Amino acid sequence: MMKRPEDAARWLLDRDRFLILTHIRPDGDTTGCAIALCLGLRSLGKDAWIWENPQFSGRFLPRMDGMLRTDLADDAILVAVDMATESLLPHGAEAFAGKAQLCIDHHPSNTFYAADTLLDATCAACGELLYSVLEAMGVTFTPAMAEAIYIAVSTDTGCFRFSNTSARTFETAAACVRHGAAIAPINRQLFEIKTRGRLELESRMIASMDFYCGGKVAICCLPQSLVEQLGVTEDDLDSISGFPRTIEGVQVGAVIRDSEPGKVKFSVRTAAGYNASAYCAALGGGGHAAAAGASIPGTLAEGKEALLAVLRQDKTLWK
Amino acid sequence: MMKRPEDAARWLLDRDRFLILTHIRPDGDTTGCAIALCLGLRSLGKDAWIWENPQFSGRFLPRMDGMLRTDLADDAILVAVDMATESLLPHGAEAFAGKAQLCIDHHPSNTFYAADTLLDATCAACGELLYSVLEAMGVTFTPAMAEAIYIAVSTDTGCFRFSNTSARTFETAAACVRHGAAIAPINRQLFEIKTRGRLELESRMIASMDFYCGGKVAICCLPQSLVEQLGVTEDDLDSISGFPRTIEGVQVGAVIRDSEPGKVKFSVRTAAGYNASAYCAALGGGGHAAAAGASIPGTLAEGKEALLAVLRQDKTLWK
Repeated sequence: MMKRPEDAARWLLDRDRFLILTHIRPDGDTTGCAIALCLGLRSLGKDAWIWENPQFSGRFLPRMDGMLRTDLADDAILVAVDMATESLLPHGAEAFAGKAQLCIDHHPSNTFYAADTLLDATCAACGELLYSVLEAMGVTFTPAMAEAIYIAVSTDTGCFRFSNTSARTFETAAACVRHGAAIAPINRQLFEIKTRGRLELESRMIASMDFYCGGKVAICCLPQSLVEQLGVTEDDLDSISGFPRTIEGVQVGAVIRDSEPGKVKFSVRTAAGYNASAYCAALGGGGHAAAAGASIPGTLAEGKEALLAVLRQDKTLWK
Repeated sequence: MMKRPEDAARWLLDRDRFLILTHIRPDGDTTGCAIALCLGLRSLGKDAWIWENPQFSGRFLPRMDGMLRTDLADDAILVAVDMATESLLPHGAEAFAGKAQLCIDHHPSNTFYAADTLLDATCAACGELLYSVLEAMGVTFTPAMAEAIYIAVSTDTGCFRFSNTSARTFETAAACVRHGAAIAPINRQLFEIKTRGRLELESRMIASMDFYCGGKVAICCLPQSLVEQLGVTEDDLDSISGFPRTIEGVQVGAVIRDSEPGKVKFSVRTAAGYNASAYCAALGGGGHAAAAGASIPGTLAEGKEALLAVLRQDKTLWK
């Protein structure tokens, strides 16, 4: 395992031909890191490409123009960014299993599947760490690189709102602006604009949300038929699990979906003092104390009853 | 006019007894600045108070515990923060007209009403400037001061989303975190949590919003009867004017309210290339290119027709 960004910088400087790998369901962090690393390596005269993840968001594709390839490029060195385990290999990239030579990541759950790994779990985003690597490589930052790092850092922190945001996160963002990143249009696209479909969905969710325990619990069922009727996309559904918890007073928020026939999926989010993981474990699932999930057979109505039965066991809620 | 933060720092260090003044409809910037300045002056052994603005948000009152006074304290030196003109004197502070001895501000429209002024219009928030002043005074920052500065900086930039956000803004936020500001609960309170009333209001606004020009124009009427029925507060209504422009594709967004009997008020927000100020001027109002307002006699329906008549003159929209 590499100890410092300088170690990864030296390793990259010593090599010449790279293929960069992002994780399944690619977010702004893995995508932004791939773009910044590809541009950084190319700026030093190296041959670098990004493997074309079939799930890349259309929002980011214009930034990857001329960088994507789908063939495996056998002689290229495979570098994974923001990918904690090989179970997160993207669709169609199964052949890359066991082949990553370097992984740059910030997830404490990293399994060290790559031949070498630079891991810093104190970073809010992998983009923070990658910024240090590029700096150590002596890269001259361009606005395009700075914007890619900014996308990585801002998306993984919910535009600096989440509790993982640190002084270093802000310092990295400051550096991106100093290197010419035009952040206002990025912020507007990623954090302000909602599609009419998403807004309509939120409107329906508000109308159908049920509150319990004096407003401490909010449960919302999201029928797949509504998702299809409104034509909302996976981009639109991004972060919908957290929606009930954005309502004042809600300590336990849950979204129940029936996106797979005959099954219901729970996403539970909780405030400090409540344990989403324990609730979901009782339904056969798991996760973290603040965010967990589970899946059981049945309808939305049955799922809701099952969840309520579990929540009723928690006497700190029902008192 | 003072040129540098160091000038204001020296001026403040030379004096001993202060009353700090915030502006009418106090936001996070003026309030956060008042708190940070009061704490900073007190930490240096000076006598400092904040004049109790009757409109201070309940969200910030706990942070001003023991700092507020309502009497005029004739012998105290009056320092206004984030207040561009004396027309922004808060309710009940009319007697302060002509009495401010120092104004620290970032508005280019500052009228230099105070005996001396430190103005830096390149700052996204007055809090950025005040941070430099406190630093120049040699203040040892406490978490409470850092959180007050963070509130100032984050609210005036919409949590770093608005186009005024600069590298210095991020650097100030980084400094706040390094000085111990616990920003996650602040972010959650200010930028994530919505009351059920506000959510319900948004839901109704979405349902009643009308789109024109293929979705480039969105107009929403907000009846006062609905505001009262949902029990939403002015805090809830904060930023509601910008709501239509958060919908994908909307270039011109307007909210029309009938909060005063017999009159309607327009708030218009536009994308680059459209001129909110020109639209509102045609209705007897004014403002900036991106954000403007107007008021005419009539009902909501009449107001909407009047606005549409103005917008129909703009051939770049109706083509």
